[in-house]
Amino acid sequence: MPVNLSLPAASAVSGVQLSTCAAGIKANGQEDMVLFTLPEGSVSAGVFTQNTFCAAPVTVAKEHLNAQQGRVRALLVNSGNANAGTGQQGITTAAGHCQALAQTLNVGTDQVLPFSTGVIGEQLPDAIMKNALPTLAAGLDSSITAWEAAARGIMTTDTVPKLTSKTITINGQSVTVTGMSKGAGMIEPNMATMLAYVFTDATVSQQDLHTALTIAVDGSFNSITVDSDTSTNDACMLCATCMGPALSADDAGWSEFQMAVNEVLLLLAQAIVRDAEGATKFITVDVLGGASTQDCKAVGYGIANSPLVKTAMFASDANVGRLLMAIGKVGIDQLDPYQVTVHVNDLPVFEHGLLHSDYTEEKGSAVMQSSDITVRVHLGMGSNSCAVYTSDLSHDYVTINAEYRT
Amino acid sequence: MPVNLSLPAASAVSGVQLSTCAAGIKANGQEDMVLFTLPEGSVSAGVFTQNTFCAAPVTVAKEHLNAQQGRVRALLVNSGNANAGTGQQGITTAAGHCQALAQTLNVGTDQVLPFSTGVIGEQLPDAIMKNALPTLAAGLDSSITAWEAAARGIMTTDTVPKLTSKTITINGQSVTVTGMSKGAGMIEPNMATMLAYVFTDATVSQQDLHTALTIAVDGSFNSITVDSDTSTNDACMLCATCMGPALSADDAGWSEFQMAVNEVLLLLAQAIVRDAEGATKFITVDVLGGASTQDCKAVGYGIANSPLVKTAMFASDANVGRLLMAIGKVGIDQLDPYQVTVHVNDLPVFEHGLLHSDYTEEKGSAVMQSSDITVRVHLGMGSNSCAVYTSDLSHDYVTINAEYRT
Repeated sequence: MPVNLSLPAASAVSGVQLSTCAAGIKANGQEDMVLFTLPEGSVSAGVFTQNTFCAAPVTVAKEHLNAQQGRVRALLVNSGNANAGTGQQGITTAAGHCQALAQTLNVGTDQVLPFSTGVIGEQLPDAIMKNALPTLAAGLDSSITAWEAAARGIMTTDTVPKLTSKTITINGQSVTVTGMSKGAGMIEPNMATMLAYVFTDATVSQQDLHTALTIAVDGSFNSITVDSDTSTNDACMLCATCMGPALSADDAGWSEFQMAVNEVLLLLAQAIVRDAEGATKFITVDVLGGASTQDCKAVGYGIANSPLVKTAMFASDANVGRLLMAIGKVGIDQLDPYQVTVHVNDLPVFEHGLLHSDYTEEKGSAVMQSSDITVRVHLGMGSNSCAVYTSDLSHDYVTINAEYRT
Repeated sequence: MPVNLSLPAASAVSGVQLSTCAAGIKANGQEDMVLFTLPEGSVSAGVFTQNTFCAAPVTVAKEHLNAQQGRVRALLVNSGNANAGTGQQGITTAAGHCQALAQTLNVGTDQVLPFSTGVIGEQLPDAIMKNALPTLAAGLDSSITAWEAAARGIMTTDTVPKLTSKTITINGQSVTVTGMSKGAGMIEPNMATMLAYVFTDATVSQQDLHTALTIAVDGSFNSITVDSDTSTNDACMLCATCMGPALSADDAGWSEFQMAVNEVLLLLAQAIVRDAEGATKFITVDVLGGASTQDCKAVGYGIANSPLVKTAMFASDANVGRLLMAIGKVGIDQLDPYQVTVHVNDLPVFEHGLLHSDYTEEKGSAVMQSSDITVRVHLGMGSNSCAVYTSDLSHDYVTINAEYRT
C-alpha cells in the first residue's frame, strides 16, 4: 500500500504514441516492453545513472542522444532484465534492438534509445524481444488509455502506476507536461531502478530542454532516497514534441514552464518514495540555514539514509537522539550544535543544545503517528536550504529485499 | 546469538584495578557503572567520536586527557544514559562526577575521564551516581573476575561480554595487552555506541601510545560498520600502566607491540559486528588493487553499508548485481568495470565486465550459506587495499531498532 499517494489526472501529449506488450521476458507473463514514439521535429534531453557499472542500454542511449543532439524518435523500454554486467555482448544486443526498431519505424538507428530494468548479469533474450518489435509498432496509440498501459508496462514491484500531468497557459496558449515513473520495486529485478519518461508539447530548443530537465531532476529524482543505493540503470527523459507554443529560456513565460516541469518530476519522484518497498511513512527532511546547498543536502541525506532514524520512524518513536546523531555524523565544518534547531512537523524538539523546554515524549510520540512526517532542521549558519524525501525502514523492506530471486 | 564469536581468554594487566556496580541508572537494576583505576606513572591515549553533536562526557574526557597529557588515573563509565544533547548542564554534571571521584581517589580532577552510553537528551541522575562513587572505589579489585565483571558492566544489549588478551615476549620479557568493548546494542539506549578500553603493562611514552592507538583504530574500529551511523559517544582508550618492559617506537621490538595492539583491537571491533543487532552473518569486504587506500575504503563501505547487499546476505542470495551496483555507486575516478574482479569466498563471480564463465546461481547460493562470508573486490588500478567488516540486515535488526524505548 503506497503512503498517501494520489496524483493529478494525466492528459495525453499531442504527438506522442505509445504501445505496450508482454514479450515474454518476465516468466510470469506480465507486460514487459513499452515503446514511445515522437514525431519528426521533436527534441529530447536525458539524465542517466552516475553508477560506474552503468548498464549497456545506458551506454547506448547516451551515445545515441548525443549523436543526434536530442533528435530522438523512439524510446524502447523493457522490464525483467537490466542488461547490466553483460559486457560487450550486452551493448551489441541493445544496439541491435535499436537498429531493428529503426528499420520498422523508418527512422535513424541512433534516433532510438534503449532502456532496461531487471535482473543483472544475464544477457537479454534477443530473439523474443526482436520478435516483439513489429507487434509494438503495430499497437502504437495516442489515447490516454495507451498512456495508462505504458505506465503499468514499465512497473516492476511498484504497487500502482505513476502517471500525472500539469497543464499551464502561457500567453493564452496551453502547454502540457505529462510523465510517468517506476522504481523502488523488484520482482525478479535486483534493484530499485528508477525510470521516468516525461513529455511536453512545447516547442523548445534541445539546450533549453536539457537545462529545464537538469534543474527539475536536482529537486526531485536527485532529492529522494529509499536505501542510499544508486542503480546501474536509472534514467530520466524529458521529450518535447514541439507541436505546441514556442518557448525560450529567455522569455518571460519560461519560469512557468520550468515550474510545471519541476512539479511533474517532483510528484513522480515522491510517488516512487510513497510506493517504496515496505514503506509505511513518507518523510520530508527540510534543511534550512545552511552555509551552502551542499551542506544542506549532506545533512538531509544523513538523516534520510540513517537506518536508525528510519526504523524509529517505522515505530512512530520520537527518538530525537537519532536525529541529532544523524545531523552530527555528517561532519559539517563549523556547525555549532547550540545554534541548531529541530522540529518534527510543527513540534519544536531541540534548541540551544538541549531538548526544547516544551518538548515531552508524549508530544513527540503523538506527532510521529502521522503517515506524512516532516523533519525540519535549521543549521543556523546561512541562508541555503534543500528538501530530501524518503521512506521508513520496515519489516516488509527486509522481507521484499531478502526474497530469493528464484 | 553472536556469529562465530570466540575470543582468546583474557589476562589481568598489572596495575589496573576495576569495580562494577548497579547504581540505579538503568530501571531494570542491571549493572550500570564501571570504574577503572591506573597506578601513578601510567599514560593513556584516546580517540573519540567525530560526531559534531558529541556527548558531554566526550567533551570533558578530551579536555582532561589533553590537560594532563595522558597522565590519567581513572576511567568512570556509566550505561543507561548517554548524557548527550544535554547542553551546558550535561558538561557540568560530568565534570562534577570527575571532581567527586578525584577526591575519593586522591587524584587530580582532570586525571579522571568520564564516559556514558544510553538514552540521549536526558540529564544524568546526578545524585545516585555520586552516591555510587564510594561503593565503586571500595570495590576496586585487580583479579580476572573483576575484569570479567567490568566487561559485563559496560554492556547494553550486547548478548555477550567482549574481553580478550594478547601476551607477547619482547627481549625475553612478557608484555600483555588486554581489552574490552561494547556496542551495537541498545535497551533503553538510543544508539549503538561503541566503547573500548584497552590496557597494557608496557612502559611507553604517551606519544608512542597515541600513535599505536591511532594505527590500530584505523584498521579495527574505523573499519567496521553495522548501519553507517556514528554515535555521539564513541570512544576507544589505550592505557599503559608502565609496570612492564620499556618500549619505544624506535626499538626493533616495537612492531611486535603494535601488532599485539592491532590484534586486540581488531578482535574487539569484529566482536561488536559479530554481536551486532540482529546479525546472522559476519561479512568481510576485502578491497584490493586500489589507486589509493581512500578509494578502497570507499568501495568497502559502499558494499558494507548497502541495505540491498545486506538483505541479500541475510537471505543467502548470491545477488551479484547488488555487489556491482554498490561498487559502481561510489564513483571511483577512472574505475574501469572491465578490470574489476569480484570473488565471494573462493568463488570467482565477476571479471571482464561479465559474470565469470564458471559462475552459476547454484555455486553462488552454496557459497552464500556460510555464516562468515568474504567479498573480495580487485579494482585493477593499483596496489592499495583495505578490509571492512559488517553484518547482514535482518528482520531482527528492524525489530530491535523499532522497539519503543518505553
